Amino acid sequence: MNKEELKKQVGYKAAEFVQNNTIVGLGTGSTAKYLVEALGKRTKEENLNIVGVATSKRTEEQARSLGITIKNIDEVDHIDLTIDGADEISSDFQGIKGGGAAHFREKTVAINSKQNIWIVDNSKLSNNLGSFPLPLEVIPFGSSHVFNKLKLKNYNPKFRENNNKRVITDQGNYVIDLYLHDIKDPTKLAKELDSITGILEHGLFLNIVNKVIVGYPNGPKIINVR
Amino acid sequence: MNKEELKKQVGYKAAEFVQNNTIVGLGTGSTAKYLVEALGKRTKEENLNIVGVATSKRTEEQARSLGITIKNIDEVDHIDLTIDGADEISSDFQGIKGGGAAHFREKTVAINSKQNIWIVDNSKLSNNLGSFPLPLEVIPFGSSHVFNKLKLKNYNPKFRENNNKRVITDQGNYVIDLYLHDIKDPTKLAKELDSITGILEHGLFLNIVNKVIVGYPNGPKIINVR
Repeated sequence: MNKEELKKQVGYKAAEFVQNNTIVGLGTGSTAKYLVEALGKRTKEENLNIVGVATSKRTEEQARSLGITIKNIDEVDHIDLTIDGADEISSDFQGIKGGGAAHFREKTVAINSKQNIWIVDNSKLSNNLGSFPLPLEVIPFGSSHVFNKLKLKNYNPKFRENNNKRVITDQGNYVIDLYLHDIKDPTKLAKELDSITGILEHGLFLNIVNKVIVGYPNGPKIINVR
Repeated sequence: MNKEELKKQVGYKAAEFVQNNTIVGLGTGSTAKYLVEALGKRTKEENLNIVGVATSKRTEEQARSLGITIKNIDEVDHIDLTIDGADEISSDFQGIKGGGAAHFREKTVAINSKQNIWIVDNSKLSNNLGSFPLPLEVIPFGSSHVFNKLKLKNYNPKFRENNNKRVITDQGNYVIDLYLHDIKDPTKLAKELDSITGILEHGLFLNIVNKVIVGYPNGPKIINVR
């Protein structure tokens, strides 16, 4: 099984946890797209009746194209279950997200959800966080000074680019990735980044996930975290 | 002297602290506009050579119209002195800003400045902070949930409106004002607000100001804070 097949496996497995008549947060990225695909199928084949809350414009487009009803997060008063990918998950089930530059919306949807499931292939598991660069969404005004501050702290910041142009988020902001390699104290780092003016949100997702579904060649493993 | 004259008095007094060949942060609001006016005069009459960094689009327009050179904050590597108004200043010289919905840019400019001067009429001084509502700049996506969270904390949030339409900041975001009346521990509150996803920046300006110029009917009083 290649990585793509593992992603499909966990996307489809996670879709089984979605119940009728619920509000479902829909993640963003290469794994979450299989979840949305599977939910589209269930909507058609089983008449599954759900309202989706998308974590990005591209997820919203995909879901709508498959016949899933979408509401804006501010049109619902709660979300029952959010299913999303993750870029790295530590052995104590903290996570890094934002590889798809959607972590602000992903976090907003996640913290307003009663339950969160993360779906990953087995390559995303690590002991400590930090092998995946930590994404920050940064307001353009003053971003060079935020960058310099992070550089002085030896956090190895890099503006994320695509074809030599800075990546722009759904909110119109930049992404700075921190190449930290090993994050010893994610809670402390989260507080520090929260306090820096100009950083809208960082990609540390702490104490959020309830269930992790990991893709392995011999089948998905379901881990109940909290 | 009416309030307008007091504002003019401190705006012009503050302009005297601006030195030739420096980079100057230019505040926003009804008091800061007199500072910009005075700097425009000095630019014309004394050939004062400064670069201004504006804290809002409207300050930028005013400064340019008066012949002051303006650079974007990301085009300069530091700011020598920023002069701005304040909505409330406590007896220990902490401040609330954001009455003009510009506090994100104002804070970004302030924290990247070597020196900060606040200019206020004497009505802005109070014992504890909180009689002026505390402004938050909030990202539209998820803002209803941020609002509900603040309501549950009994922070008396209110979306700021103008002619029945939500005020939009220079970054395209909303403003929520917290009617707190008395802020007992500004540092603790700042940390709490920093940690809430969706709040770009709050209007607490702590340990920032170096000098306060207060307008009184018998002349400006200059207070050296730190």
